[in-house]
Amino acid sequence: MKQPGEFELIERLCRDLPYGRRTLLGPGDDCAVLAPTRRPQLFTIDSMVEGVHFELAWLSPEQLGERALAVNLSDIAAMGGSPRSCVVNLGIRKGLGAAFFDRLYRGLGRAARAAGVDVVGGNITRSAQLTLTVALLGEVAGQVLRRDTARSGDEIFVTGTLGDSALGWRIMAGEIEARGAARKYLVDRFVAPQARLGAGRKLARMRPAPAAIDISDGLLADLGHIMERSRVGAEVDLAAIPYSRHYLAVAGDRADLALSGGEDYELLFCLRPGHSAPVLSRRLGVAVHRVGRIVERRHGLRLRRGDGRLVPASGMLGWDQLGVDP
Amino acid sequence: MKQPGEFELIERLCRDLPYGRRTLLGPGDDCAVLAPTRRPQLFTIDSMVEGVHFELAWLSPEQLGERALAVNLSDIAAMGGSPRSCVVNLGIRKGLGAAFFDRLYRGLGRAARAAGVDVVGGNITRSAQLTLTVALLGEVAGQVLRRDTARSGDEIFVTGTLGDSALGWRIMAGEIEARGAARKYLVDRFVAPQARLGAGRKLARMRPAPAAIDISDGLLADLGHIMERSRVGAEVDLAAIPYSRHYLAVAGDRADLALSGGEDYELLFCLRPGHSAPVLSRRLGVAVHRVGRIVERRHGLRLRRGDGRLVPASGMLGWDQLGVDP
Repeated sequence: MKQPGEFELIERLCRDLPYGRRTLLGPGDDCAVLAPTRRPQLFTIDSMVEGVHFELAWLSPEQLGERALAVNLSDIAAMGGSPRSCVVNLGIRKGLGAAFFDRLYRGLGRAARAAGVDVVGGNITRSAQLTLTVALLGEVAGQVLRRDTARSGDEIFVTGTLGDSALGWRIMAGEIEARGAARKYLVDRFVAPQARLGAGRKLARMRPAPAAIDISDGLLADLGHIMERSRVGAEVDLAAIPYSRHYLAVAGDRADLALSGGEDYELLFCLRPGHSAPVLSRRLGVAVHRVGRIVERRHGLRLRRGDGRLVPASGMLGWDQLGVDP
Repeated sequence: MKQPGEFELIERLCRDLPYGRRTLLGPGDDCAVLAPTRRPQLFTIDSMVEGVHFELAWLSPEQLGERALAVNLSDIAAMGGSPRSCVVNLGIRKGLGAAFFDRLYRGLGRAARAAGVDVVGGNITRSAQLTLTVALLGEVAGQVLRRDTARSGDEIFVTGTLGDSALGWRIMAGEIEARGAARKYLVDRFVAPQARLGAGRKLARMRPAPAAIDISDGLLADLGHIMERSRVGAEVDLAAIPYSRHYLAVAGDRADLALSGGEDYELLFCLRPGHSAPVLSRRLGVAVHRVGRIVERRHGLRLRRGDGRLVPASGMLGWDQLGVDP
């Protein structure tokens, strides 16, 4: 149900998009046609809504296009796969002109090229809020990283540092002050998250395949998803949470954004004991820290404080509980 | 970026969804995992937005779920394929409870089962308007029905009758009055469109493969897409447009809704001359009417009036020009 104006816009936006041999028919027909695949496929969908997930003042149109793809790439990374093709649904509101969407698609196309993704189709509808929904197909070479394979005794690792993006959000929202390099770094972590595709693929080559998830809802909430699906409990060592120096400079010892802020797009994964974080960091090509361990389900989720005491994490599972309204 | 409440809702909604052998891992992880495919795949996305495409007073939640899938199925039908797997993004607003979404997913699940589609994943975000976005994968057995293969001399056919859905819309919106069986029939045509999957697959077996499109924007607008992609012109015979008896009873000889109303989800296709509509109707299992022919591009789009005169169709290409705000 497109109006002619909408049809012409999507035709134009799709005109310069790159696509390769695996796309037999690109944008412009009722469906795209993709070549058959020999490998299992990954399929995911995610959406960014203006006023809920972002404000236009915070990102350029190009960055918005890149980010809409990045949050989907992160889901492919968390399964250990490689992204291949996507279709995009734009909900467009009044007040945004064709030049805006040209720039948005320039960013989307750039991010797609960098990730080896063909943008094979799209649709435009009117909406009260600008909305970008991307459905992404990927492939896996062998094993997949699942949420339901963590076992008691596993050690829990995360890539990168946590809380930067949630802090960057609050800086842009004017809730927290920051300047100079710290501000730029933290805001960038929100604006331009980097999906850990390479690390995910390397994790998928390990035996047994690690349980894994991407940290989009916050460390504790996403660990909660692993716990629920794997029917296990977990302990998180608060002293081991990896912070960036800019996070520490701006937020001090405030742990909530790193635990529950969301939007990190780092990977959390669980390995049988005995792996060293420095060795893993070299192997995965990204800094890795051990942040806790999987325990039996009856223990639920507990946090180990600086004094060594274990306390239940109940009430710290996500934005809702923090009274945060992102 | 889901809040915990949203995560729990999507987990619950997906719990009872059917999926079969081609889905290696269903909802609940970062991505679904699908078995490799031997055949070319179709990939499409479409969205329904409250206040733009529908009002909640018009459909039950179950019908809404069914319809969100149906409009995507129609894109697969227009390529001559079979639908296989979908992921769903729900934009949810305040004021709609879990019972509403349970019912919506019951309708979606029912439609998916009927069409042989696995609902393999989903995502929920907050939004100002209820929004249902479905990305659908399908398969093709051989040829695909494209928009860019119409040739001068081809005859243009459509399945079913046109304008019923647009008329049903206006009845629900209170713009046009209708009662009894006519009202029910016309409203149903909007509420519960039937994708022409069987007819599409049969068309894909014909040699050469017909050019085809589904009529979602209106006969003239969608024929315009064929013309643009195939670089041809077309003539539409106004006297040959197929109307339902209920359309005629309520709208009389008003042709605009049948030409440009949109939401028909019938198929338009183009064949080399010599095919008989009655024979095609039997073969495709749905009533088929010849409505015009493809001509050279320089003629553009023309309408043949009852008196035999050809008039340019400019200014009748879609909702915009009709001053209709659906």
